[in-house]
Amino acid sequence: MPKLWSETIDTHRRTVRDAILEAGWALVSERGLMSVTMTQIAEKAGIGRATLYKYFPDVETVLAAQHERHVAAHLEQLTALREQPGGPAQRLKAVLERYALICYHREKHGTEEFAALLHRGEHVAHAEQQLTALFEELLVEAAASGELRDDVPAEELASYCLHALAAAGGLPTEQAVARLVSITLTGLGLSV
Amino acid sequence: MPKLWSETIDTHRRTVRDAILEAGWALVSERGLMSVTMTQIAEKAGIGRATLYKYFPDVETVLAAQHERHVAAHLEQLTALREQPGGPAQRLKAVLERYALICYHREKHGTEEFAALLHRGEHVAHAEQQLTALFEELLVEAAASGELRDDVPAEELASYCLHALAAAGGLPTEQAVARLVSITLTGLGLSV
Repeated sequence: MPKLWSETIDTHRRTVRDAILEAGWALVSERGLMSVTMTQIAEKAGIGRATLYKYFPDVETVLAAQHERHVAAHLEQLTALREQPGGPAQRLKAVLERYALICYHREKHGTEEFAALLHRGEHVAHAEQQLTALFEELLVEAAASGELRDDVPAEELASYCLHALAAAGGLPTEQAVARLVSITLTGLGLSV
Repeated sequence: MPKLWSETIDTHRRTVRDAILEAGWALVSERGLMSVTMTQIAEKAGIGRATLYKYFPDVETVLAAQHERHVAAHLEQLTALREQPGGPAQRLKAVLERYALICYHREKHGTEEFAALLHRGEHVAHAEQQLTALFEELLVEAAASGELRDDVPAEELASYCLHALAAAGGLPTEQAVARLVSITLTGLGLSV
């Protein structure tokens, strides 16, 4: 097959795949996990059922793939913030603030059963590892520049941040999220 | 039925029930969730299968009941610590330390699938509410006596404690747990 043609096919496949993922996610957000079928997803994505089954075997797999995309996008955002100019403490603060807001908005859409389904996936365990590593690097840098308590290993501080900031999921407002970030930073020994 | 006789029956029922719960829990801890059957539980508890089914319909229900007992026992421990003599900050510290240790030991037994099964239960949501309320009362007391930051509502501080201390589940040693408690208290503005 000529290269140009195979690129066109790839692009087409990606477009169809994206349409499926967005359709599945939108339907579940509207109607809840249990009531969404492959037929509905195909309809909403504007493709035939047979085509849909060439891409995904079931609703769960569609959702897991879309969730994986969200997680990857969040990790990219956080990595970009880590690489901004500024001292390590300042960048750490920016990363932790953004992560808390991600937790906050995440709980606003989706039901508990949805979360239970998605958070079993391997890609989530992998993303959590990447996230902890990202926090850890910044914590090591901040400790080296004397801006942080140095009586606790960075690995433990990273796990503390990850857990403490997850509380943002149950908070009522962005102001409350900002307060949570400030408490968490105080725990790290960072002046805020 | 005479009262004495019905009390004897009640005691007998409780004894059988306890034997079932402990048998189920021990088997799952040894062999993993998926490989345990009702027949094995009956055998280990020293009763017949027919008797077992008079008490519980399936393995999951046995485990949920035993888990509920564990959760209730932990809540009792924490409530007792709250009611000890001493200033509110001191009692808050004792309660948070114990809770962190509970999280630490909890992860040491049981698999992830086990946790996922048990933590879906309603009694867990209820226990979390009681736990948050317990933390919150102590936080209000400590704030009133000026031992705590007062720029954040007690409800938010309680949720911060609950999430931050859950990090204890992934820590390698009790020393690391003690460090986590110290970081968390620093976040609250408590001197430690």
